[in-house]
Amino acid sequence: MVLGHESAGTVIETGPKVTSLKPNDRVALEPGVPCRHCPFCKAGRYNLCIDMKFAATPPYDGTLAKYYVLPEDFCVKLPENVSLDEGALVEPLAVGVHVVRQADVKPGNSVVVFGVGPVGLLCCAVAKAFGATKVVAVDIVDSRLEFAGRYAATGTFNAMHSKDPNVNAAEIIKRFDLIFGADVAIDASGATPSINTCVHVLRAGGTFVQVGMGAAEITFPILKLCAKEITLKGSFRYGPGDYGLAVELIASGRVTVKDLITGRVKFEDAEKAFEKVRNGQGIKTLIDGPLD
Amino acid sequence: MVLGHESAGTVIETGPKVTSLKPNDRVALEPGVPCRHCPFCKAGRYNLCIDMKFAATPPYDGTLAKYYVLPEDFCVKLPENVSLDEGALVEPLAVGVHVVRQADVKPGNSVVVFGVGPVGLLCCAVAKAFGATKVVAVDIVDSRLEFAGRYAATGTFNAMHSKDPNVNAAEIIKRFDLIFGADVAIDASGATPSINTCVHVLRAGGTFVQVGMGAAEITFPILKLCAKEITLKGSFRYGPGDYGLAVELIASGRVTVKDLITGRVKFEDAEKAFEKVRNGQGIKTLIDGPLD
Amino acid sequence: MVLGHESAGTVIETGPKVTSLKPNDRVALEPGVPCRHCPFCKAGRYNLCIDMKFAATPPYDGTLAKYYVLPEDFCVKLPENVSLDEGALVEPLAVGVHVVRQADVKPGNSVVVFGVGPVGLLCCAVAKAFGATKVVAVDIVDSRLEFAGRYAATGTFNAMHSKDPNVNAAEIIKRFDLIFGADVAIDASGATPSINTCVHVLRAGGTFVQVGMGAAEITFPILKLCAKEITLKGSFRYGPGDYGLAVELIASGRVTVKDLITGRVKFEDAEKAFEKVRNGQGIKTLIDGPLD
Amino acid sequence: MVLGHESAGTVIETGPKVTSLKPNDRVALEPGVPCRHCPFCKAGRYNLCIDMKFAATPPYDGTLAKYYVLPEDFCVKLPENVSLDEGALVEPLAVGVHVVRQADVKPGNSVVVFGVGPVGLLCCAVAKAFGATKVVAVDIVDSRLEFAGRYAATGTFNAMHSKDPNVNAAEIIKRFDLIFGADVAIDASGATPSINTCVHVLRAGGTFVQVGMGAAEITFPILKLCAKEITLKGSFRYGPGDYGLAVELIASGRVTVKDLITGRVKFEDAEKAFEKVRNGQGIKTLIDGPLD
Repeated sequence: MVLGHESAGTVIETGPKVTSLKPNDRVALEPGVPCRHCPFCKAGRYNLCIDMKFAATPPYDGTLAKYYVLPEDFCVKLPENVSLDEGALVEPLAVGVHVVRQADVKPGNSVVVFGVGPVGLLCCAVAKAFGATKVVAVDIVDSRLEFAGRYAATGTFNAMHSKDPNVNAAEIIKRFDLIFGADVAIDASGATPSINTCVHVLRAGGTFVQVGMGAAEITFPILKLCAKEITLKGSFRYGPGDYGLAVELIASGRVTVKDLITGRVKFEDAEKAFEKVRNGQGIKTLIDGPLD
Repeated sequence: MVLGHESAGTVIETGPKVTSLKPNDRVALEPGVPCRHCPFCKAGRYNLCIDMKFAATPPYDGTLAKYYVLPEDFCVKLPENVSLDEGALVEPLAVGVHVVRQADVKPGNSVVVFGVGPVGLLCCAVAKAFGATKVVAVDIVDSRLEFAGRYAATGTFNAMHSKDPNVNAAEIIKRFDLIFGADVAIDASGATPSINTCVHVLRAGGTFVQVGMGAAEITFPILKLCAKEITLKGSFRYGPGDYGLAVELIASGRVTVKDLITGRVKFEDAEKAFEKVRNGQGIKTLIDGPLD
Repeated sequence: MVLGHESAGTVIETGPKVTSLKPNDRVALEPGVPCRHCPFCKAGRYNLCIDMKFAATPPYDGTLAKYYVLPEDFCVKLPENVSLDEGALVEPLAVGVHVVRQADVKPGNSVVVFGVGPVGLLCCAVAKAFGATKVVAVDIVDSRLEFAGRYAATGTFNAMHSKDPNVNAAEIIKRFDLIFGADVAIDASGATPSINTCVHVLRAGGTFVQVGMGAAEITFPILKLCAKEITLKGSFRYGPGDYGLAVELIASGRVTVKDLITGRVKFEDAEKAFEKVRNGQGIKTLIDGPLD
Repeated sequence: MVLGHESAGTVIETGPKVTSLKPNDRVALEPGVPCRHCPFCKAGRYNLCIDMKFAATPPYDGTLAKYYVLPEDFCVKLPENVSLDEGALVEPLAVGVHVVRQADVKPGNSVVVFGVGPVGLLCCAVAKAFGATKVVAVDIVDSRLEFAGRYAATGTFNAMHSKDPNVNAAEIIKRFDLIFGADVAIDASGATPSINTCVHVLRAGGTFVQVGMGAAEITFPILKLCAKEITLKGSFRYGPGDYGLAVELIASGRVTVKDLITGRVKFEDAEKAFEKVRNGQGIKTLIDGPLD
């Protein structure tokens, strides 16, 4: 099966009814095309479509190919000041946009993000673009935290501080002056201690968004969630407008994705890019399109 | 310390600024008086107040007394057709109102309620009053399910059916024709298998409200919550308007609370009422006020 | 051009991909088929679609025909206990459902509906089904108010009481004990005095929904709307789930539409039905399908 | 009666229960103290309080005095980098914050603001701080538009372009590439043509917020509001958190209020400041506190 779902490219040919695109337009490719007919699609939540065709998700081939066919409305045009390289990063950025929208981050909010791999980093950047005043990045690897601090976080915290989620939460609240606790917590780590710290670090009435990754089941402090009336939401892929806003955040300079590109390989060496991910090397490695 | 926080009574005397109440008015007593100054109070979520004075929660005495002093706006007047007995049940009904409001149950919704003790039963009744078309009660005790079926549920399910939450969820969906799954799940049991079944029984995008009870920590299917973009909310006590709506639901006959009164003891035998709760006897045992 | 957009019928034939319908199924026909591709469709608001194909709206023919072709997901199956006659009234009921959803009517709310023609009557009925405790119908024709009172309203008010919207509003508030004012006002009359009374009759923070009819421009008390922070929303046709809920409200007996059928003509006499509407005779006149 | 409701000052003395403030703290004064007991206060909308004590609103004296007594939670502490001059402008900025929150401006939105006096200017600035990508200022005075363009708007439009609101709306949409129309329109002018242009310039499903000023009644295109399902909301003063966010926007540099200070008079010349407002001179004239 062909892999690839984070990609951008140039329009080669358009169908007879296409009006908004023409050959040579550069576009980011939104990789999931929903059925447009099920109740989820019609209710404005096409990421929950019951008959989604998603690139590189069996039985559908991915985008790592010379040509790829996609409906007009899932090709998002790149403005002149957004490169194809950046266009390829619209996909993970749209994931971050969807997370931050699920969290309903508002200007003035304090946001704590757990796990600063690519998705966590982009959540930090989007939260800031949404007006969060404090964005605290939490991880267990100092080098990642340093990058997060330079990239988008207003503060960083190494969770090796304590094995007790309560202790870590109290320390984050104290160190970053979060008063009653954070308005929003985002877990992009999938680790049980992080998920528990999310619940403890939030103020009463706060919102916790979990990005899908990590173990299927975890130990969860449900009573605390009740007593604080926390809202926990899952975030899955991206929905209406997320891709468009992601492109706009790049174009307007409010989010920088270039900094996340730490490598580049030729199309025929694509496997190397996946190896780097497996080995935790760099953040994002681009794969160039086939030369001909 | 004096116990008691579910109570109704007759106004004996009012302060000089009280305008809406006078002696002999019958009122339900909302047992928690918030500070009215903290950000939670001012933002309309006084149940999350940082300085709440709640009856029978140390250091505050409860309502099991001849006289009790309460601010005017926490005394909710009972209409003529609502008895003091019913008034004493406004408290647990307000808990149910708050849960169903947190769940944002809408007309046409399907709702599954896990655990049909008093709170679960009232959640069923309120969900129906809010227009839910299907209200499925789930428990492991047949006699409780039978009562739930007569009282408010449109269907019942004994969770002893399977030890596997996935199997139970699939069976509930099939048996009650929930198609993509339930719109809303409410857990009033606190039991890990129930909480897991909640996540499995919901449709994508569904809402799960947990009422605070049971173990502090549970095993939770977090990945499933993500993939289905479920919203999980805690529900804690009651807030603005919940008591008023509870009284109105009783007055208009949309919720019947009398059926839940399964016993009655004299003031001096109050201890017996608490014993019954401990022993799981009956649903609600009333304690009469002191004779003089 | 062929007229007709309120209709129900029997499935004669289905396309090869149709799975949920088969010949002889009885269905209500949702008359507007959106493009499924524009931002409004994708965001869950297909009634705002920029390329809607709506029955009897040029250049599209209406449903007053022997055969009509409609996508599977816009044919809403009628349960056994819902007749084709009732099915034909799903359309105006869906208008009412959409209005009441726009108004976000909640259990316990007080709702005032201005203008009790078919749409206003159905708004009353749906508001009640959504749990409104008080539903006051306002009109200037006593016979219509009498019908509204029997049909769904809990109270009625003849607006001929005063020419001054402020006086009428104050009288409605007093007579129906609305305290700070109504939670929700719905105008289905399009008349300037009614629209003004809506603003005056609402409590601060209340919601006012205008159903599209009447003059294009009116005189509007904008300052009052500001000082009371009223939310005014337009309601246009119906969107995701409205048709389905309308059918469910009929099937469950929560809304009765039969009472609105005041006449019936043969297919070849269809013109007479439109004449009756023009002359204000009856409420709804059904047109039978062609015999062969 | 003493005037004044936009003010900041230094704490001289605190009551015995005050914990968050001490003498010499610099604070912005939120001028309206609600009753904390009415349903509006308890529901989180204290700006709609039925028993508000608002500075300089009879019978309550204003803040133009040497000493002023205010509850702790309506004194908003100024961070070190916010001056008392800026503190005096927190009031109008809080008005803008409330408007933009009522409009629920989101990142990526296009916002058109009509009337760029002080409130309109601050709405532009806050909308931008909330992530609006396009903020178009509309007025009929070129010098005001020039200032708006330098201050916060991304584009400006002189409404003298046409007397027809439809023509102006179409021109704004075209000139600023708003495609289906603006996401949000804010009217801070109170002028009938502006209010009409708001409705025409919005996309279907857009939001229109009216700030309270201008004529009590206007001519309003109600049918257009229906067909486009526009939401119109009034905005009245400010509520929970608005003052705090206003201070934070200044402290973080996201909104600059200094630029709006165009004059300064001594306490004994206060009348001159009000004269300037009457004559439309400058934007905001500060009045210094009394020397002793």
